[in-house]
Amino acid sequence: MRPEITVVRLGHRQQRDKRITSHLGLTARAMGASHFVLCGDDDEKVLDTLADVTETFGGQFTAEYQGKPLGYLRHFAKQGGQIVHLTMYGEDFESATPKIPTDAPIAVVVGGAKVPGEIYKLAKYNIAVGHQPHSEVAALALFMSELMGGVAGAEQFPGARLEVKPHPSGKVVIDHEEDSDTSQ
Amino acid sequence: MRPEITVVRLGHRQQRDKRITSHLGLTARAMGASHFVLCGDDDEKVLDTLADVTETFGGQFTAEYQGKPLGYLRHFAKQGGQIVHLTMYGEDFESATPKIPTDAPIAVVVGGAKVPGEIYKLAKYNIAVGHQPHSEVAALALFMSELMGGVAGAEQFPGARLEVKPHPSGKVVIDHEEDSDTSQ
Repeated sequence: MRPEITVVRLGHRQQRDKRITSHLGLTARAMGASHFVLCGDDDEKVLDTLADVTETFGGQFTAEYQGKPLGYLRHFAKQGGQIVHLTMYGEDFESATPKIPTDAPIAVVVGGAKVPGEIYKLAKYNIAVGHQPHSEVAALALFMSELMGGVAGAEQFPGARLEVKPHPSGKVVIDHEEDSDTSQ
Repeated sequence: MRPEITVVRLGHRQQRDKRITSHLGLTARAMGASHFVLCGDDDEKVLDTLADVTETFGGQFTAEYQGKPLGYLRHFAKQGGQIVHLTMYGEDFESATPKIPTDAPIAVVVGGAKVPGEIYKLAKYNIAVGHQPHSEVAALALFMSELMGGVAGAEQFPGARLEVKPHPSGKVVIDHEEDSDTSQ
């Protein structure tokens, strides 16, 4: 069963992190998460980017800002959700991921510059994707691939205006609105 | 057999891409690539970040700047290397990756803002990690995991000064230089 995933980005700094956080949100969406929570600086541009991509490429992905991530996560856990924290200090993801129950909603917490110590305790699972310093974007992608059994397929993005089709050497993009225009 | 991988970042823009390109280089290293080639703006800071992390966390990873990526890639192919281009327009990575021979060096080309059309032809494989817009960092991580059979383990980072050990709720970092100091 594909679990319902919310990705929570802690400690966003508008200037320094704007592109990384956008990449994180887009990766969450592309890997099959249903919701993204931005914490730290309230950055409309990140939320707009995610809304624009969803409008163009389909699916039900939503995003919001939360000023109090610890309160949000405590509430999430109280409602029966599982909290997973991605950190290079955690348990190996290959062995830890299969232990996570997928029949309750999961919040995947991705740290920013400084992660409050309480997150390590709030999280039922602290999980490391390798123990080298690399990227929260890479860690999220690899963890979600393990959890979801691969990258989300086209069937998970209904209502897309633009749809990219695989091609060995060129670009094939179907514009479903143009299709309808043409057939009128 | 684990192939020898060079990751080639096209079209780096110093201001806009500095953190994404650093994340890309660090992800290349953490996934087991041996070399990183920066193209576009010549940005010492990115190269310094990669050198610093390698000095601290071990391994043989190297990085360089190349002003002429097409020339570099043509030469790479002439020497018997395989060129793989990651693009959301390419073939599905799950089915295409197993076709790539791993007994010759592989250059994984990751696009920047604008990818010259010639790259699609120079590349023996144009490969897509999902067909949604997301992140070159996520795409590189997922492709390399598929190619290399997972994330690189500690044995691939010999000579590390700092080594992170898995822990379910805390941070365990071994400082090998302090170890030696203590044992004196």
